[in-house]
Amino acid sequence: MMNKQVVLRKRPVGMPEADTWALIESEVSDLQDGEVLIENHYISLDPAMRGWLNDTKSYIPPVAIDDVMRAGNIGVVTESKNPKFQIGDVMTGWGGVQQYVKTDGEGYFKVDTSMVPMTTYLATLGMPGMTAYFGITEVGKIKSGDVVLISGAAGAVGSVAGQVAKIKGCHVVGIAGGPEKCAHVVNELGFDACIDYKNESVYKRIKELCPKGIDVYFDNVGGDILDAALANLRMHARIVICGAISQYNNTGHIQGPKNYLSLLVNRATMQGMVVFDYAAKYRDAATEMATWIMKGQLRSEEDIYEGIENFYPTFLRLFNGDKRGKLLLKVKA
Amino acid sequence: MMNKQVVLRKRPVGMPEADTWALIESEVSDLQDGEVLIENHYISLDPAMRGWLNDTKSYIPPVAIDDVMRAGNIGVVTESKNPKFQIGDVMTGWGGVQQYVKTDGEGYFKVDTSMVPMTTYLATLGMPGMTAYFGITEVGKIKSGDVVLISGAAGAVGSVAGQVAKIKGCHVVGIAGGPEKCAHVVNELGFDACIDYKNESVYKRIKELCPKGIDVYFDNVGGDILDAALANLRMHARIVICGAISQYNNTGHIQGPKNYLSLLVNRATMQGMVVFDYAAKYRDAATEMATWIMKGQLRSEEDIYEGIENFYPTFLRLFNGDKRGKLLLKVKA
Repeated sequence: MMNKQVVLRKRPVGMPEADTWALIESEVSDLQDGEVLIENHYISLDPAMRGWLNDTKSYIPPVAIDDVMRAGNIGVVTESKNPKFQIGDVMTGWGGVQQYVKTDGEGYFKVDTSMVPMTTYLATLGMPGMTAYFGITEVGKIKSGDVVLISGAAGAVGSVAGQVAKIKGCHVVGIAGGPEKCAHVVNELGFDACIDYKNESVYKRIKELCPKGIDVYFDNVGGDILDAALANLRMHARIVICGAISQYNNTGHIQGPKNYLSLLVNRATMQGMVVFDYAAKYRDAATEMATWIMKGQLRSEEDIYEGIENFYPTFLRLFNGDKRGKLLLKVKA
Repeated sequence: MMNKQVVLRKRPVGMPEADTWALIESEVSDLQDGEVLIENHYISLDPAMRGWLNDTKSYIPPVAIDDVMRAGNIGVVTESKNPKFQIGDVMTGWGGVQQYVKTDGEGYFKVDTSMVPMTTYLATLGMPGMTAYFGITEVGKIKSGDVVLISGAAGAVGSVAGQVAKIKGCHVVGIAGGPEKCAHVVNELGFDACIDYKNESVYKRIKELCPKGIDVYFDNVGGDILDAALANLRMHARIVICGAISQYNNTGHIQGPKNYLSLLVNRATMQGMVVFDYAAKYRDAATEMATWIMKGQLRSEEDIYEGIENFYPTFLRLFNGDKRGKLLLKVKA
């Protein structure tokens, strides 16, 4: 049986180009005892993937040249020589950008798709949803009545972070690109307001919409938007540094937040987070969020494209804004 | 009786020039009931003064044009129509840059100069010492064995922060300007090492001296040194934003920390502080630090100049590095 795989060919400078990866095909070898074969149905596309291409110290090692591109995945067991896994089990883990993955099952979790669809395990009940949940509750320390600002509000993480903050009784303002996304954030996701950073002054709109300032800012983007948030902090504000999508493809220096002394004036805190630190609590959070989804309080937004050969153009959607919610690639033929 | 006063004449752009302030003389009017007259002996010169000249939102209002320049002071009661204050009482408060201050006593504290000299109440037992103490213990959350980096290590705040960290069992590395100051920081203040930012690569020296990274960075300076510290964080590091002396006289934009995403990689926290928030605990901290001073564990470093007419050239020493420890001006004739 042939397995199509996307492998890393070179380390990009700035925005990756088409020849950063190559699509190869190889024969799947026979299973050894203890192994299981998973047919990937969906792979997860995340901004963090850009960081994994750089050969620099980070929270996990970079993807090696000629290795299969790292990605979260969900699929179905089609063969098993491991008594813990049965044919038909739905498994999620780090299967990479390929059609089949052979594994001893370490780091994989069996999931129940009777209540929510498979894709939701890569979205709201997956890494982006966990990032949002722990970022906004444990790092942002939201409490009822807080004024919460969320950048990337139409994205996989921001859409969940804002909805969780609404469920917890906060006043939630989003930031997204374009009137259509902003309308969606307010009308479908239930945010109190949304700032269109492509057509409005983010600084002025924050000032208008949050006249007393912001208690919590959940930052997915960095750059000028982070500076606009810093200029509008309330006393003892918390800034959750979850990502900096505006900076990931920079070829020059990262743009540092020039308004960081607002932390001093407002006795505020800026704290970085990596979702893996909360792994021991994933299950409880997923249970809570699944309940919200089933009650209709939380929407899992998934934007699904098809075909492993479309990995590169789909990846670009992470950075050009041309997607809504969690970006997924269906790789099952 | 005549009172010499330094009043603010204009708001400086960049480094203040001599005509930013004027020295005037005025008659001290008679005391009203409830008032007390304090003859100032020393005034405190602090980098924060630069911020008070800007007409921008901050943690306290700016000094108004033609008002006496705001400053901490210590002096002796020479007349009293307030039963709470006796002639001869030594008082510290916000008396401003002038020889005499008439006050109802609000915000003033009587101090005991039998154990430590008057000047120490503006230094280690005053605002800089309190800033150091609460910054390093409550914001930095130091614990025994932590690797602690302190910028402005020869300064009023940094010298105390580092000594407190040593007393608490930390490994302490300072950063100061020039070999003489660095030798002083190590030999007299007992830091484990000191980096000379004028003659060494701060980034490389941190890497050498703290090979496992920094647990706590106490930042008094901002700019490139903050970036060098960010590039050398240990997991769950805490950065205390106490000031940014390298940026206070900038005429352009503040230099934001371009390595701030190290907060994410290292799950680190950057938190601003203003000493006034800890006012309720000043007394306990002063008692603890006075005990350390008397035991010889803590040196209060005071650099004293004379004459109210020398306010401007003495003020400049805050920013040109030409001072050691707490900068004070003796204004008693």
